[in-house]
Amino acid sequence: MVRSERKDENTIKAGDLIFVYLDRKRQFLIQAIQDLEFSSDLGNMDLSNIIGRPYGYVGETHLGNKFYCLKPSTADLMMKLKRRTTIVYPKDLGCLLLETVVGPGARVIDIGTGSGALAMVLAKLVAPDGKVFSYERRAEFIELARANIERAGYIENVEFHCCDPAEQEFSQVDIDAVFVDVPEPWTIVPKAAIALKGGHHLVCWSPNIEQVKKTVEALNQNGFVRIRTSELLEREMLVRQQGVRPRERSITHTAYLVRAQKILEAIRD
Amino acid sequence: MVRSERKDENTIKAGDLIFVYLDRKRQFLIQAIQDLEFSSDLGNMDLSNIIGRPYGYVGETHLGNKFYCLKPSTADLMMKLKRRTTIVYPKDLGCLLLETVVGPGARVIDIGTGSGALAMVLAKLVAPDGKVFSYERRAEFIELARANIERAGYIENVEFHCCDPAEQEFSQVDIDAVFVDVPEPWTIVPKAAIALKGGHHLVCWSPNIEQVKKTVEALNQNGFVRIRTSELLEREMLVRQQGVRPRERSITHTAYLVRAQKILEAIRD
Amino acid sequence: MVRSERKDENTIKAGDLIFVYLDRKRQFLIQAIQDLEFSSDLGNMDLSNIIGRPYGYVGETHLGNKFYCLKPSTADLMMKLKRRTTIVYPKDLGCLLLETVVGPGARVIDIGTGSGALAMVLAKLVAPDGKVFSYERRAEFIELARANIERAGYIENVEFHCCDPAEQEFSQVDIDAVFVDVPEPWTIVPKAAIALKGGHHLVCWSPNIEQVKKTVEALNQNGFVRIRTSELLEREMLVRQQGVRPRERSITHTAYLVRAQKILEAIRD
Amino acid sequence: MVRSERKDENTIKAGDLIFVYLDRKRQFLIQAIQDLEFSSDLGNMDLSNIIGRPYGYVGETHLGNKFYCLKPSTADLMMKLKRRTTIVYPKDLGCLLLETVVGPGARVIDIGTGSGALAMVLAKLVAPDGKVFSYERRAEFIELARANIERAGYIENVEFHCCDPAEQEFSQVDIDAVFVDVPEPWTIVPKAAIALKGGHHLVCWSPNIEQVKKTVEALNQNGFVRIRTSELLEREMLVRQQGVRPRERSITHTAYLVRAQKILEAIRD
Repeated sequence: MVRSERKDENTIKAGDLIFVYLDRKRQFLIQAIQDLEFSSDLGNMDLSNIIGRPYGYVGETHLGNKFYCLKPSTADLMMKLKRRTTIVYPKDLGCLLLETVVGPGARVIDIGTGSGALAMVLAKLVAPDGKVFSYERRAEFIELARANIERAGYIENVEFHCCDPAEQEFSQVDIDAVFVDVPEPWTIVPKAAIALKGGHHLVCWSPNIEQVKKTVEALNQNGFVRIRTSELLEREMLVRQQGVRPRERSITHTAYLVRAQKILEAIRD
Repeated sequence: MVRSERKDENTIKAGDLIFVYLDRKRQFLIQAIQDLEFSSDLGNMDLSNIIGRPYGYVGETHLGNKFYCLKPSTADLMMKLKRRTTIVYPKDLGCLLLETVVGPGARVIDIGTGSGALAMVLAKLVAPDGKVFSYERRAEFIELARANIERAGYIENVEFHCCDPAEQEFSQVDIDAVFVDVPEPWTIVPKAAIALKGGHHLVCWSPNIEQVKKTVEALNQNGFVRIRTSELLEREMLVRQQGVRPRERSITHTAYLVRAQKILEAIRD
Repeated sequence: MVRSERKDENTIKAGDLIFVYLDRKRQFLIQAIQDLEFSSDLGNMDLSNIIGRPYGYVGETHLGNKFYCLKPSTADLMMKLKRRTTIVYPKDLGCLLLETVVGPGARVIDIGTGSGALAMVLAKLVAPDGKVFSYERRAEFIELARANIERAGYIENVEFHCCDPAEQEFSQVDIDAVFVDVPEPWTIVPKAAIALKGGHHLVCWSPNIEQVKKTVEALNQNGFVRIRTSELLEREMLVRQQGVRPRERSITHTAYLVRAQKILEAIRD
Repeated sequence: MVRSERKDENTIKAGDLIFVYLDRKRQFLIQAIQDLEFSSDLGNMDLSNIIGRPYGYVGETHLGNKFYCLKPSTADLMMKLKRRTTIVYPKDLGCLLLETVVGPGARVIDIGTGSGALAMVLAKLVAPDGKVFSYERRAEFIELARANIERAGYIENVEFHCCDPAEQEFSQVDIDAVFVDVPEPWTIVPKAAIALKGGHHLVCWSPNIEQVKKTVEALNQNGFVRIRTSELLEREMLVRQQGVRPRERSITHTAYLVRAQKILEAIRD
């Protein structure tokens, strides 16, 4: 493969999502369109001629401050989508994804669509021929999630179901993984046990300890083993020439993570 | 797709890696072969007839203890491979993978092959047509890594380079992400800057603060922006009917994680 | 004050408790007596002539390894007493002591004598004319605690009560602080409310979250305000010439700490 | 001792410091004086008749909100004094105090008076006949500290020295403990080694890792042993009927704590 060809692949195209970075407090996810101007308190950024430039391009605001056109990571897409709900954080989701079996072709269930961040990431991972079945009882959230996932380009791998997931059976079976992010995850467990492939994973995350306890009880009663709960704390380090130390104030809690794997005891052949 | 067909996909086949779980302290990654017996202090497990069974199968040791044949997650493959080095933990790698752009077709560099855990996970993510270029100066580690990755089925997506990565240029360019896990990551930074696509990510992890500080300096000097350092602490929770609390002793440090993105300032056209 | 006089005060006297330190894994609290020899795997230490030496004295084992005769801190006395129970850690107790009003002359209640570590520290703080009322239902623990506190020299400031503190009223009133370290702290709260001075503090610590929740409910129902719960995590740092990092394995949970202050609403005059 | 006498001791007297608590965000340390009115956004509090009331008294603002007149803890005195500097937190100081030998009669050195919080707490502990020698190079901070400690009632146990502690020897010897809170603690170590009694403790705390490393080096070179560094993280728990979880944002770093004990090797007699 010739270098020049590869280079084209790194060129900003119309419709691309770009991560525009000025500094730690000024970072934006922007869709590249013709005739775009974007402003911050460090000056206006003329993005009209950015299409065709390579990623990594360095521009200047009209006040002379530099801005950088970076490639957004999956975490950037998650954190910067339009949202009206709390979000699953990359530190939590990254760990959970590695602790399940979600890859190209997988069929996974996402309970609690919310703003669609999780469905978007799952869709990216199961593409091109897998499917995310995303359940949400509030129609307006499904619309928000649909818009977010379309913008990211993965809408074909998501199938939305607008219903209360605690109220009815899932229509899918032989599912590779179930992700649960609703206030009462224990109500989902019996249905997830039916939908999941044997030996495969259910994960859920909840902010409160009572939720975790009820969910773990439900898992124990519905044929799940290897049940584990943990939380991940992220400590940012300030690394400066004059001294290194942890940041003085930060997020100190997001969610407790629960994982479990389904066995076939109850339905042994 | 008919259910019976899907069910076949969840059947244990000869050569599959299975996660055999007895309890928290007895869990094994085993390759399914004919006439296999496996023993633990809770009894022998006859795995000879396991091929053809579904994942989630529940067996019994000759002492009457249950064991569960589970689907291994990516994290299980990482943690249970044969190793002679410390390993990157799922909590750390999961976060870093979401904070980069590694998907099907990506071309990524892995500095410090070690036992091959990272190269294996990256290979899985870039398959079917991407490539992991994995550098390691110790030939015996490349052999170990090759065996580990072959066993996991992803060897075709890995290209090993046996050389000291601090001593020579990478032969690849237009790379989507660089992962650095060597004792002197700052020596890699100038070369990584040349190999990386503009706007794309370098990540590295180091146990000591001095390593982080030198690496951040090198990143600042070699055209990287959005440099961030953090560490992730995992706290396991014991969730029991009689009381919930964090585990009393645990791992308390693995590595500091550094991420950065390359800009094109130095090599602007 | 002449220097020579002060120096005498730092001389090891017969009966003194000395902290003998060889290295991180070999550190002992020893009572200085005539003709004492003490052995470790780094050699025997002849302590027979240590009486009359100053604190800070450096000796040598018969194998040529150095040992140091140091002044024990309050934390050393706590951690090195003879015990058959878990202990309140200096990190936890230190914080709680500052968050109460315990000084010379104070009268405090200690619920759950255990091995006596807490009663010993409290006795030291309320001396010379204050008193610690220490409750414990198991007579053998009171004997152990008595021996430990006698050895430390504070027995005159402790009054033991051998009874189940959940079963009967405290005979004391106008107490300055109540410290609770029993499995069911909520059973103590109504009695503590009667014994405590208005505006003063009850503190307790428990390993499980359920205990905390029940205790906080009891505090709310018994006229306590400013109820706060936290936990303290200690991370040891390895500070070495070749690199600084946190210790890799450590204690990760001791107890949740609860504090509250009693108001007079219910018993207003 | 008759109960009525004890009760008098818990009566608010003119000049007392009272902790006035409305809720988590409205808590004040107030000196009781005649004709005092104090206002908050929850209403004015008439404190004119508070003298003679018992601690634990419940009042009402003119808007009908309750306020509580509580006994301030040592931690409250520390956190609520007038300050122009960062402060040593109770979680950190409590642990360090237990890990030293500071009690009635002790003579201790405090390097870096700042707003006087530490000198105040130390003065309280060494009273009635001990002394705190507090060094500070900025005269205006000594004035602030003096006012703070006078208000708390412990000024007689503090002796201020206005000089740069890095520039000159301490005039004290046979000191029981040295507390160091300045940006360059390693400059203090050689002088502290001379002032300290053998076997006794130096402690210091610093926000940055580089400071810790230099200090540990200085301790190693100046006859200190048993050098230990750690940090304490406090996680507040929200304990509510509807769910228990850690607070979502908090302080995540205050200081690294270093402790060491001096040996007599260099100055053996």
